[in-house]
Amino acid sequence: MFNAIKQLFKEQFDLDIHEKRHYQIAFTHSSYVNEKRKENLQDNERIEFLGDAVLELTVSNFLYHYFPQLPEGDLSRIRALIVCEESLSKRCKECGFDQYVRLGHGEEANGGRERSSLLCDLFEAVVGALYLDLGLDAIEKFLEQTIYPKIESGEFKDHRDNKTALQEELQKDGQINLSYRLLKESGPSHNKRFEVAVCLDGEIIGQGQGTSKKHAEQAAAKQALEDIQKDK
Amino acid sequence: MFNAIKQLFKEQFDLDIHEKRHYQIAFTHSSYVNEKRKENLQDNERIEFLGDAVLELTVSNFLYHYFPQLPEGDLSRIRALIVCEESLSKRCKECGFDQYVRLGHGEEANGGRERSSLLCDLFEAVVGALYLDLGLDAIEKFLEQTIYPKIESGEFKDHRDNKTALQEELQKDGQINLSYRLLKESGPSHNKRFEVAVCLDGEIIGQGQGTSKKHAEQAAAKQALEDIQKDK
Repeated sequence: MFNAIKQLFKEQFDLDIHEKRHYQIAFTHSSYVNEKRKENLQDNERIEFLGDAVLELTVSNFLYHYFPQLPEGDLSRIRALIVCEESLSKRCKECGFDQYVRLGHGEEANGGRERSSLLCDLFEAVVGALYLDLGLDAIEKFLEQTIYPKIESGEFKDHRDNKTALQEELQKDGQINLSYRLLKESGPSHNKRFEVAVCLDGEIIGQGQGTSKKHAEQAAAKQALEDIQKDK
Repeated sequence: MFNAIKQLFKEQFDLDIHEKRHYQIAFTHSSYVNEKRKENLQDNERIEFLGDAVLELTVSNFLYHYFPQLPEGDLSRIRALIVCEESLSKRCKECGFDQYVRLGHGEEANGGRERSSLLCDLFEAVVGALYLDLGLDAIEKFLEQTIYPKIESGEFKDHRDNKTALQEELQKDGQINLSYRLLKESGPSHNKRFEVAVCLDGEIIGQGQGTSKKHAEQAAAKQALEDIQKDK
């Protein structure tokens, strides 16, 4: 198994891994250990504890520098979207780590290899192994090919909230002054329509309509965001 | 202010800090910034976000190696006792950082300089500044003089739970077999007394009494722990 993992790291990430024992632990689920009690194996829970902390720091450090204007609350919110089960289980499958994890028969039969909590833990465990084996520089190289590009492409922006996303996008270049202006209000009270503009330093950069001011503002922010993406 | 902090780091921790701006941010509370809006200052909340993650990793890494036999749940529990308001606010005062934090007048008048949440945040912010300025090696050197000795002296063991503490203490040297044996039960049903022995690989290493089996076990573990400490 180690040779296949070694090859995977070399081919996918240009990383030369050395210390077999760390990866053997990382790729061993507790269900496998429980079935082979006599072999005195270690499962990946301790190394996952370490890997989780490695991800917290590296991702925090990336966000701190990538969004120099974002307040702490927003950094925490984005970090929680990155270092979470849904996101890390996806990364785990993208990397192909799921193929190599050793599971007990019951866990395998119950679809453990597809279970997102197991895959998230596996990803964190592999990060822990990589950290013990090669240190933080290798982690940075690994994340530059797995997680950081997703942050840069906006994967972790909360797409339901276009206003926040627009604010974040524009703040990357420094302090900004974003405001929303009601352009038009029409229709009877039970069926109102609002038209809103979003302005950057007083200049309109997007417009939107909706059944409430809130919805119209979100629509305006969405249009502005789309225009910014087009310009890139 | 920076010169005093520079001197503090040199004299207390033998660390040469350089980048003034990081420490200026770390030692600036939001209440100070709010009072001086025109000066366009930055408060320490973003850098605290980073420092918190630095502590999570460094402490996790220390615990991972220091307790090679402890399961993940115990490592998480101990880490939570170390990286928490009560513990970090104490460390903050021990280091003398509280003398230098810049507060708004209201915050100062309301005793902010003594408030543990503020002091905990300050400690994390200073760790963030140190990380940005000098990197993880300097953090390790700093923690070797502030937090790690407290772990080694057992400060973060949950003293209410002597059984867990004993298990942890003995597991440091490898797999162990710890058991509790009821030696004696006496008294009427409304006023029972229990006497319990704790055994390591079948050999009694401590005895205790109590009004319930549970209490007697805790007392036995406490005695065993005290004997181990004496032997050291």
